[in-house]
Amino acid sequence: MNALPYDGLLLGVHLATLDDTRPGGHVIEDGALGWRDGVLAYVGPRSALPAAPAKLAREVIEARGWATPGLIDCHTHLVFAGHRAHEFDLRLNGASYADIARAGGGILSSVRAVRAASEEALLAQSLPRARALLADGVTTLEIKSGYGLDFDNERKLLRVARQIGEQLGVTVRTTYLAAHALPPEYQGDADGYIDAVIAWLPRLHAEGLVDAVDAFCEGIGFTPAQTRRVFEAARALGLPVKLHADQLSDLGGAALAAEFGGLSADHLEYTREAGVRAMAAAGTVAVLLPGAFHVLRETQLPPIALLRAHGVPMAVATDCNPGTSPLLSLRQAMQLACTHFRLTPEDALRGATVHAARALGLSDRGLLRVGLRADFVLWNITHPAELCYWLGGTLAERVFIAGHPTS
Amino acid sequence: MNALPYDGLLLGVHLATLDDTRPGGHVIEDGALGWRDGVLAYVGPRSALPAAPAKLAREVIEARGWATPGLIDCHTHLVFAGHRAHEFDLRLNGASYADIARAGGGILSSVRAVRAASEEALLAQSLPRARALLADGVTTLEIKSGYGLDFDNERKLLRVARQIGEQLGVTVRTTYLAAHALPPEYQGDADGYIDAVIAWLPRLHAEGLVDAVDAFCEGIGFTPAQTRRVFEAARALGLPVKLHADQLSDLGGAALAAEFGGLSADHLEYTREAGVRAMAAAGTVAVLLPGAFHVLRETQLPPIALLRAHGVPMAVATDCNPGTSPLLSLRQAMQLACTHFRLTPEDALRGATVHAARALGLSDRGLLRVGLRADFVLWNITHPAELCYWLGGTLAERVFIAGHPTS
Ligand SMILES: [Zn+2]
Ligand SMILES: [Zn+2]
Repeated sequence: MNALPYDGLLLGVHLATLDDTRPGGHVIEDGALGWRDGVLAYVGPRSALPAAPAKLAREVIEARGWATPGLIDCHTHLVFAGHRAHEFDLRLNGASYADIARAGGGILSSVRAVRAASEEALLAQSLPRARALLADGVTTLEIKSGYGLDFDNERKLLRVARQIGEQLGVTVRTTYLAAHALPPEYQGDADGYIDAVIAWLPRLHAEGLVDAVDAFCEGIGFTPAQTRRVFEAARALGLPVKLHADQLSDLGGAALAAEFGGLSADHLEYTREAGVRAMAAAGTVAVLLPGAFHVLRETQLPPIALLRAHGVPMAVATDCNPGTSPLLSLRQAMQLACTHFRLTPEDALRGATVHAARALGLSDRGLLRVGLRADFVLWNITHPAELCYWLGGTLAERVFIAGHPTS
Repeated sequence: MNALPYDGLLLGVHLATLDDTRPGGHVIEDGALGWRDGVLAYVGPRSALPAAPAKLAREVIEARGWATPGLIDCHTHLVFAGHRAHEFDLRLNGASYADIARAGGGILSSVRAVRAASEEALLAQSLPRARALLADGVTTLEIKSGYGLDFDNERKLLRVARQIGEQLGVTVRTTYLAAHALPPEYQGDADGYIDAVIAWLPRLHAEGLVDAVDAFCEGIGFTPAQTRRVFEAARALGLPVKLHADQLSDLGGAALAAEFGGLSADHLEYTREAGVRAMAAAGTVAVLLPGAFHVLRETQLPPIALLRAHGVPMAVATDCNPGTSPLLSLRQAMQLACTHFRLTPEDALRGATVHAARALGLSDRGLLRVGLRADFVLWNITHPAELCYWLGGTLAERVFIAGHPTS
């Protein structure tokens, strides 16, 4: 029986708590973190600990560097089969998108690969990607379906997402994104496909596979009217919505997501002020995805200044996917968000922690604060901006999920 | 006593040999690599092995994936003290370069940090960076001095570079770059500083610390006339030269490097056709440094089409440095070279192997070919373009230097 107040105590580190309710700022130099039963029980200066460390916890870790909340990757398509490096190669050798489509490439090639893969194969291929994210500090991640595009294969993707959470001991939030692309069997009948998407949803939800619902609202995706129908089906089940909005053109996606009280609207390169105002009013988070911006060499920047001016919280995510954002590190997405979108390193860190938690509807994590989950990362750095500064390398020294080290 | 023909044999992998003298192309599917005494003894299809594997080597490795030559990072400033993440932070918070200079930032802050650090501290800080490069497939790297700017501190940097090679068992090529910036004690007397740079060189060379000589020829660096004097001093000692050329303006640096038969001219964003022609005639390699281009958000691309047209070999390097290119992975530099400079993945791989070897004057590595060093990497990939496609993650499964696994 453990009579000591904490299960574990981390000492010797500076803390980037990201907790704006702390008097004097969110940073605690020479801090201490104590936890019990998976929850933070002490977050403060070492000098204010209520007793000598040995009287507080059996496991006392003397470390150096910085601790932050565990990173939260709030937008990924991480479960897929194969990769599309050959398309990347073809494009750099001069092939056009039309050439690649003729060669069987594009999103439908991922759909074919997923449909052909067994659940076991899909899990085996996806686990290393999840492990790579964890190794770089991720303790919670979202995973979308959307490469199955029929009931059985969307179900397979969501089941694999759940299994990743179980196998790695990490929180996985699943998002149903059957409205990602039109499958070949529905060519010319997008409305009919949306009927099917809506019919599958309650069955998958009944299996406990769906935490949120998303759609790709775009000229090359689904119309706002079709997206609205999907969102109404989600609302009928009490499921929150998110949206791939305004990435390539302004179809009013941000406002549509806000109208449904969406957790987030994601991408947003073409969102204008009306959409930003609607998000601010609804409390919808802006999820910025600099990986696709980088890989596609886009030039239209999301409206960062407007988002700031209207107080819309900005999250940053990998968008890990084989076509447009083959990112295996949320820290690299933070680097790209600073470089391409001019986020400050602190913005990027908030975007990968507290704002990302909100984009997933999770209020029990994303900050270092007593009572929240003991998900935190010990970084081998001397300045928190290093998280956004280095490209490559390994900075995460230890990663804790609910007070347990992950390796 | 080992009576078998090879010390080791790798089977089950595809080989990207990069050896254009092979009939039928440089790729060998289902290949085999054999080595003895640190040198490649068999490079070919598994089916053409001269005997059963067990009769060829005691150590037979059955693997999967691809093997390539060990990566070669031919341009780094990897030995430094501190970092400049706080400047990165200041810039993203709106500080101008003038603000940062007033706050004591810029290259001279790295000079102060290096001068204040002991040799042991400098080694302890630099080793993890070298280890990060190795973990991602690097088996040979170049390290420049240039943050000391006086005899003792340039010597300290070069000594630490040599120690990194010894401690990690990796080949380190050292480059003397005292002509990197003007130290405070020579303000207003750049010619006098060049006199000192020239005076220190033979003493450092006599200690075996200098493999090549470099300079920063730029409006904010040294003039072509000053660079020429440094190069003449190198020539007098029989040392090869390299040059930081035409990064921010065209001062004719590429042609100057070529005039001295330079191993390489590096950066080259502003090089025009005359410079490219001169490099082609001299056999000078173009070293492309997309990290600084990315971090500084440059828009002036190096003249890739001209370099191709004139047959100038292109290398790719990290330029690992705390101010403009905090890259800890050569693979990430390859990704940036594809994304920003539109190199093909094969170009980028040649740039990080065979062309990089040439940029260092090394003819015993950079290809998988019998008789060359057994420096190779076993990658957990199914297509070689994956090396340039993923951002983040760990793809190198095992790294061999002279036939020995590095971990
Ligand atoms: Zn997405
Ligand atoms: Zn350099």
